[in-house]
Amino acid sequence: MSNKIKIAVLGYGNLGRGVELAVRQSDDMELFGVFSRRNPSDVKTQGAKVFAVSEILNHKNDFDVLILCGGSATDLPKQTPEFVQNFNCVDSFDTHANIPQHFAAVDKIAKQNGKVCVISAGWDPGLFSLNRLFGAAFLPKGESYTFWGKGVSQGHSDAIRRIEGVIDARQYTIPVESALDRVRKGENPNLSTREKHTRECFVVAAEGADLEKIEKEIVTMPNYFADYDTTVHFIDMETLQRQHAGIPHGGFVLRSGETGVAGETKHIIEFALKLDSNPEFTASVLVAYARAVARLAKKGDSAGAYTVFDIAPALLAPQTAEELRKDFL
Amino acid sequence: MSNKIKIAVLGYGNLGRGVELAVRQSDDMELFGVFSRRNPSDVKTQGAKVFAVSEILNHKNDFDVLILCGGSATDLPKQTPEFVQNFNCVDSFDTHANIPQHFAAVDKIAKQNGKVCVISAGWDPGLFSLNRLFGAAFLPKGESYTFWGKGVSQGHSDAIRRIEGVIDARQYTIPVESALDRVRKGENPNLSTREKHTRECFVVAAEGADLEKIEKEIVTMPNYFADYDTTVHFIDMETLQRQHAGIPHGGFVLRSGETGVAGETKHIIEFALKLDSNPEFTASVLVAYARAVARLAKKGDSAGAYTVFDIAPALLAPQTAEELRKDFL
Repeated sequence: MSNKIKIAVLGYGNLGRGVELAVRQSDDMELFGVFSRRNPSDVKTQGAKVFAVSEILNHKNDFDVLILCGGSATDLPKQTPEFVQNFNCVDSFDTHANIPQHFAAVDKIAKQNGKVCVISAGWDPGLFSLNRLFGAAFLPKGESYTFWGKGVSQGHSDAIRRIEGVIDARQYTIPVESALDRVRKGENPNLSTREKHTRECFVVAAEGADLEKIEKEIVTMPNYFADYDTTVHFIDMETLQRQHAGIPHGGFVLRSGETGVAGETKHIIEFALKLDSNPEFTASVLVAYARAVARLAKKGDSAGAYTVFDIAPALLAPQTAEELRKDFL
Repeated sequence: MSNKIKIAVLGYGNLGRGVELAVRQSDDMELFGVFSRRNPSDVKTQGAKVFAVSEILNHKNDFDVLILCGGSATDLPKQTPEFVQNFNCVDSFDTHANIPQHFAAVDKIAKQNGKVCVISAGWDPGLFSLNRLFGAAFLPKGESYTFWGKGVSQGHSDAIRRIEGVIDARQYTIPVESALDRVRKGENPNLSTREKHTRECFVVAAEGADLEKIEKEIVTMPNYFADYDTTVHFIDMETLQRQHAGIPHGGFVLRSGETGVAGETKHIIEFALKLDSNPEFTASVLVAYARAVARLAKKGDSAGAYTVFDIAPALLAPQTAEELRKDFL
C-alpha cells in the first residue's frame, strides 16, 4: 500500500482537469479517480479513471480527500454540505457575499460527521485573501487595494454572449496602470470603479448583425460594463479561437501603510499573480490545501470547516517541518 | 483590568523603538514597558516605562509576551533560550544557517517551561520565507528567486567603516532590474551573485585619506563586495546625514512555475516589499506574531517553539474568525 495522499475529483471541467494535472506534480500524492455526473465513458481525462458520481459511496475508503470542482452558483452550495457527510473535502466556493453562510453550513455537517473541509481555496478567495489579511495585520494603519487582471472574466464573457446577434465573446479585465502606480507611490488614493479597471471585449457577431447596437448594449450594460471604460472589438471566429483561446488571469493585492511616531514612515506590500491559466493555477492551490486537509484528518480531533486563514502554511508543503526551517526560512 | 494583550520589549535600539510604536497602532494591545541592560534613566523612549533587565523576574505576571529586540550575532542565541524559561517570547533571529539549532534550543526549553515562542519573525526570515514556501507549494515545478533592496545593509556598512581612513559609510544593496525582468518573463534564468544585485557605497573619508586605496579595499573585499559590481561615492558627513539617514529596505520573492500536461502553462507569483524603515516594519511583524503567541499561550497545550510556517494566518489579525471570513476572504 502506498503512503501517498489519495485524491479524488468531483466534476471534470477545466478545474477538474487542472487538479488531475496538479496531482501529477506532487510526489506525495496520487489520483484515485474522477467522479462525474456524465456517463463515465463520455469523460475524456488525461489518464485518470472515471466513475459515475452515483457510485461514490462505494469508494468511501479508497481516497483521503475529495476536491470539489463544480461551480459556485449552483453546484457547491449543494455539493459541499452533501459530500462532507462522507468525505474530507476542498472547494473553491467564490461567491464572496455568501461565504459566511456556506462556511456555517459546511462546518456544522463536517463536525457532525468527523470530516475536515477547506472552503473557498484558490487565489481570490484564497491567496489574495491571505495577502489582504497579512497587509492589515502587519500594517494596521493603511489602505488595501485589490486589482484584477489582465485576465478573462468568464461571467462578463457570458453576459456578452447573451446579447442578440453575438455568437461568441471574450472579455478581459485590465487594471489601470496609472492607478496601480499611484498606490505603489503611497498616495492612498480613493479610486472609483472606473479608475481601477478597464474592460476589453472581443466579439464575434452573426452575419448582418447590427454592430453599433451590440456595442451600445455592451458598454451600457448595468453592473457588468456601465461603470467601466469598455472597448469593443469585432473579430471573426477564427481570430477568436486563435488569439483568445487561453484563460489567463491574475492581479495585485497591495497594502500601503505607515508606521512611526505620527505615520511619517511609509511601506508598501505588494502581491502579484500572472497566470497563463486561471483554472490550472486554482487547481494547484486546491491540491496544496488538500494536502493540509489530509494531514488534519489524519491528526484527528480536527473536524470542521476551515478557510485559508486557519491553515498553518507548513501544512501546505510536502516537506517536513525540519526541511522547511532549513531550506525555506 | 484591561483585556488587552500586554507586551514587553527587551532591548531598546531601532527595533525596540519600532515595537513601542507598533503596539500603539494595535487597539487590542498595550505596552507594559521596556527592559534594558542600560541604566533605565538613560533610555529615552517614546513614552514607555523603562525597567532594568535585572528586575524582569519581578514582573512575571505583568505582561503576556516579551519581544526580544537584540541582535542575532550574540544577543538572541543566549537571550531567547534564557527568557523563554519564564516568558512567552518572539524573536527575529536572522542568521539563516543557525536557525535549526536555535529552534531546537528554544523548543526544548519552551516545552520544559510551558511557554510559547515564535523565532525568526520579521520579513526575511519571515514574510519572504512564507512566500518561498507558498511558491513551492502552489507551483511545485518551478524556480524561486529572492532579490533584496533597494536597501541599507547594516553589515556591509559596518564592514566599510572598519577600513582605515573611513569615518562613516552607508551601503545600499540594489536588485538588478534586468534580472528581475527576466524572472518576471518566465525565463527561469540561472543568475550569478553579480547578476542579481549591485552594491552602492557612500563613504565619508578622513581628511587626507587615500581615496583610491579605500575604494580598492571596498570593491575587492571578499564575501562582502568582491562578487558584486560595486560603486563607491565619497561624500561629506553633512551630505551623509542629510541624504542617507533612513534605513530603507525591501525586496522581491518570485516563483516562476509551470503547470499543464507538459509544463506548457506558465505562472508567476511575486511578493514585494518597499519599506521606508526596515526596523519599524520588522517591529510591526513581530507585534503581529506576538498576538499569535498570546493566543496560543492562552489556549493552552501549545508550549514550544514556532516559526512563521506554523502559525495559522488568522492568529495574526485582531479580528474574529467571523469578521475575517466576512471582510477579508
